[in-house]
Amino acid sequence: MLSSNPIIDDVFVDFLLYDVLDVEALTALDHFAAHDRETFELYLRACRGLARDSLFPAYREMDEQPARYDGQGIVCHPSMRRFYPMFVELGLLTATRPQHVGGQQLPAVVHAAASAYLGGANVAAACYAALSASAAHVLESFASASIQETYMRPIYEGRWCGTMALTEAQAGSGLMDIETRATPAKDGHYLIHGAKVFISGGDNDFAENIVHLVLARIDGAPPGTRGISLFVVPKLRVERGSLIDNDVHVTGAVHKLGWRGLPSIALSFGDNDRCHGYLVGGMHQGLELMFQMMNASRLGVGSAAASTAMVAYHEALQYAQVRTQGRRVGRRSDAPVPIIQHADVRRMLLRQKAIAEGLLALVLRCYHLLDVSEHGANAEAREHATRLLDLLTPVAKTLSAELGFESNVLALQVHGGYGYASDYLPQAWLRDQKLNSIHEGTTCIQSLDLLGRKIFGTGGAIMKAFLEEVDGATASAERAGLPASWIDTMRTSVSTLVRTTSYLGAAAMENPELGLQDSVAYLELFGTIAIGWQWLTLAQAARKRLSDGRADARETFYEGQVIAAKYWFEREMPRVRLLSDVICSGDDSFLTVSAAQL
Amino acid sequence: MLSSNPIIDDVFVDFLLYDVLDVEALTALDHFAAHDRETFELYLRACRGLARDSLFPAYREMDEQPARYDGQGIVCHPSMRRFYPMFVELGLLTATRPQHVGGQQLPAVVHAAASAYLGGANVAAACYAALSASAAHVLESFASASIQETYMRPIYEGRWCGTMALTEAQAGSGLMDIETRATPAKDGHYLIHGAKVFISGGDNDFAENIVHLVLARIDGAPPGTRGISLFVVPKLRVERGSLIDNDVHVTGAVHKLGWRGLPSIALSFGDNDRCHGYLVGGMHQGLELMFQMMNASRLGVGSAAASTAMVAYHEALQYAQVRTQGRRVGRRSDAPVPIIQHADVRRMLLRQKAIAEGLLALVLRCYHLLDVSEHGANAEAREHATRLLDLLTPVAKTLSAELGFESNVLALQVHGGYGYASDYLPQAWLRDQKLNSIHEGTTCIQSLDLLGRKIFGTGGAIMKAFLEEVDGATASAERAGLPASWIDTMRTSVSTLVRTTSYLGAAAMENPELGLQDSVAYLELFGTIAIGWQWLTLAQAARKRLSDGRADARETFYEGQVIAAKYWFEREMPRVRLLSDVICSGDDSFLTVSAAQL
Repeated sequence: MLSSNPIIDDVFVDFLLYDVLDVEALTALDHFAAHDRETFELYLRACRGLARDSLFPAYREMDEQPARYDGQGIVCHPSMRRFYPMFVELGLLTATRPQHVGGQQLPAVVHAAASAYLGGANVAAACYAALSASAAHVLESFASASIQETYMRPIYEGRWCGTMALTEAQAGSGLMDIETRATPAKDGHYLIHGAKVFISGGDNDFAENIVHLVLARIDGAPPGTRGISLFVVPKLRVERGSLIDNDVHVTGAVHKLGWRGLPSIALSFGDNDRCHGYLVGGMHQGLELMFQMMNASRLGVGSAAASTAMVAYHEALQYAQVRTQGRRVGRRSDAPVPIIQHADVRRMLLRQKAIAEGLLALVLRCYHLLDVSEHGANAEAREHATRLLDLLTPVAKTLSAELGFESNVLALQVHGGYGYASDYLPQAWLRDQKLNSIHEGTTCIQSLDLLGRKIFGTGGAIMKAFLEEVDGATASAERAGLPASWIDTMRTSVSTLVRTTSYLGAAAMENPELGLQDSVAYLELFGTIAIGWQWLTLAQAARKRLSDGRADARETFYEGQVIAAKYWFEREMPRVRLLSDVICSGDDSFLTVSAAQL
Repeated sequence: MLSSNPIIDDVFVDFLLYDVLDVEALTALDHFAAHDRETFELYLRACRGLARDSLFPAYREMDEQPARYDGQGIVCHPSMRRFYPMFVELGLLTATRPQHVGGQQLPAVVHAAASAYLGGANVAAACYAALSASAAHVLESFASASIQETYMRPIYEGRWCGTMALTEAQAGSGLMDIETRATPAKDGHYLIHGAKVFISGGDNDFAENIVHLVLARIDGAPPGTRGISLFVVPKLRVERGSLIDNDVHVTGAVHKLGWRGLPSIALSFGDNDRCHGYLVGGMHQGLELMFQMMNASRLGVGSAAASTAMVAYHEALQYAQVRTQGRRVGRRSDAPVPIIQHADVRRMLLRQKAIAEGLLALVLRCYHLLDVSEHGANAEAREHATRLLDLLTPVAKTLSAELGFESNVLALQVHGGYGYASDYLPQAWLRDQKLNSIHEGTTCIQSLDLLGRKIFGTGGAIMKAFLEEVDGATASAERAGLPASWIDTMRTSVSTLVRTTSYLGAAAMENPELGLQDSVAYLELFGTIAIGWQWLTLAQAARKRLSDGRADARETFYEGQVIAAKYWFEREMPRVRLLSDVICSGDDSFLTVSAAQL
């Protein structure tokens, strides 16, 4: 009934990469000098093909036949035996890594755009590669040459997988309460004892070995987060050239609402006192190193969330054009009309478009900042990008999860009763999306990071970088002749953001808990403007195409960009004022209401 | 780990029934004269026990082992063989029905309060009884004495079940496109040919027979909704005292996201030309009769939705008190604290409380109006109640579904990673809740009913009844000394509602599609005020208890009511203005955007 789902519209991605973010300019930087648009296209094309031809067709089955624990280890869906070598072959694990570790030195933004197709097609399958690459990347950054040779290289080569084993059942997000112990042994390694939960991809049946990055506390370490260290703890350790069992055991798997192709498991380390771990970085530096991982992971979640909204949007858009039902209000017709003719269906589709495309634009802008922060032409450019990226990372992660979920709800609703049926995919994407407000730090934790650490914690310094960026984009849009009402809305909204930030800063001086009680609403306010900024930029680029005769027979596409921007400014940006009013109401019920009153 | 979930707080229900709605006053009406608070309590107690001791303990298993189609018929979870006789024994099917059909003549509001526990405990199980009762009620209202004797009585007696078979695959919500045919036969019956989908409880393996109420088109009937008639089409028909096969066949079952204990099935009628149907009401009056069913069903959905939000709220509230994690912002402590000490967790709990309790209050107010509309002391009272009920029914249904879903999302989020795991129930309630914005008319359809039919269609007459009611409640709250800011917010919000309604009315005069394009936002605006009205009334009653010394050692409960009201007025009511601004922006993108631009 449906033509095949594009997952993401190629025209939109090309527009984002080349018109809006101008990624070709990155090739002027030394690090990316070997690349040009052609190499970007090669990689994009390969990922699009993998997503559409292999990952997406297997999605439903992997959702319906989840990875499971057989009492010994994890049995993955058999497709993974086929897919993982394809990921490796395609270069997914090392795309952005330097040549000296076998990588292609692609800009992260190009890799992210390509990966978004994989995440939209089959987020669980794609995540095995992303988790492995992330673990190897930590080793590349911080581990000794010998650990890199022994444990990083096989991951990058695609023979082994990698994970991050951070969470413990009793501690949850409270890493200060981690209890896994690391006892120094005489050969320079540590003996690890402890148990971790919620380890995505923590075991599988298709890789020869799995390398876990484990947070643990060295005997005698200071309490709290300042006493946490990071260790490599492989499933099988290398000794004299052989792989031997390292006393790491699967103790259970979580039955999950979504992401069902990727097991979330519990591991115990050192039940038989034979679990070796190898320190990465300095003693007690675990939290700091973890933040590098976490930042990358948070952008990854943002990308997965935007993609999950996007693929469902395209499904709903196609469905609405072929499903006939009812008549248009006030119009007669003999036969039922395609439901896309109903105003409310178009409302739901336009909102999904504005959210999904706005989120992907924000996420890719973050990856672009990542490229500049690491490889920018000079220290100033790198520092500016780093600051902005620090600020935007929790926003991109959380907004994608929360707004993405709202978008996924609408995709299901467009399908009516069929949306509730397992034969249709929107309900599966809705289930997948819900994880994104939880893993890699909940929405609340992200909002505390934004407001407490990034804004209050820097005395407003990185906020200033953001405001300059948005002011610049607004001035540029004004010069380009975008509607005065949008320019006005953007400037008023930014003033509201500044005023709200000052209000909360003053409240926090008096009582930190009071200043942070509305952090989630603050992040929503901030994010609404951040997406507005994207739509201003997208609309400006689209208008340019339309006005300078370079629309290449894609007029309707560019018109659609302008319409989505209009939607955002007229129907979503007004929320900025509402959120500010609520935040600044002075109500302290969240602090004062007691459990008994609830 | 958790003490047992109360599903709904008895203290809150008693407060609603006796303090806020004063249901005891109903016993002054002739129809309810045999009742008093004691008979109400007996029924409430029985339902609470059934919900807590039987339905709730079976909920998880019924969700995990859904009803299934075995190629012949539906195999239900074995618990249903135990539960259905308990429903009958308790009098659930006839609680509100008159004595002459074996009923107890209980007020609908008392029955609804009691049923809310069943819906919260196990919505799928409870729904078998509600569907059967609803079908029998239609027969009681409109069928001939002989059909009542043959097909209604066995349902009320609990031997048979009943369903509503309205939807057809090609027509969906567009009932004008129904194609099921009814051909007059010589014995006064009709021969039915057609196929229906999404029939909840359309087959089961525990009742002797199932009576379907089927919409069909009599040969030669006018096209559109004006040619639809309603038929009784039993699975087994009665002929000369025997039950014989009536050529009704199960052709499939939908695998659903939730409500998994209640099958949603496809039926075909008359494959062998031997399916008899019996006309109910007059020819071509099907749509009108169906509306009586639909109104009751919509309130039922509202109640189910409020209950599904409520049970999840209580789960989250309990979890937050026993789960320890992290430290309070800015405070030191040696050990992790119960997460209810985190401001954001209390934010999520307070919002859930304000939503779930506000929704249940609105739903029960509707049932109270239903009692008055049918049995009120005089024609004026009955007419006033009828008008208000007509207006509030789509609001109570839709707001419960949509806000209830937001509440269920928060309940999951409070559980963090565990919320995403199938071992915990919030994910199941989230799945259940999603159906409520779809079945018995989608959110869009309800909003068109509110704005198009109920408000525009009556020239504002029933809107006036609503405004008088709210104005009266506001004036009473003002006299009782409730905070001036709330009174002010309520009056401003009502003005905004009136202004927005006028704006849309004018737009609709010009172009009906334009006037109705924002019907969903309008319903949200209307509903936010409707819940505000409930909280004003609840807070007033709670303050009365606190101030006149009748708090009966439940001070914290009444304080909690006032805090939730404060939350609603300070943090939710401001949305009224935002929604109005957006609705009145003059943007017509939903009408003008083309499929190609999306």
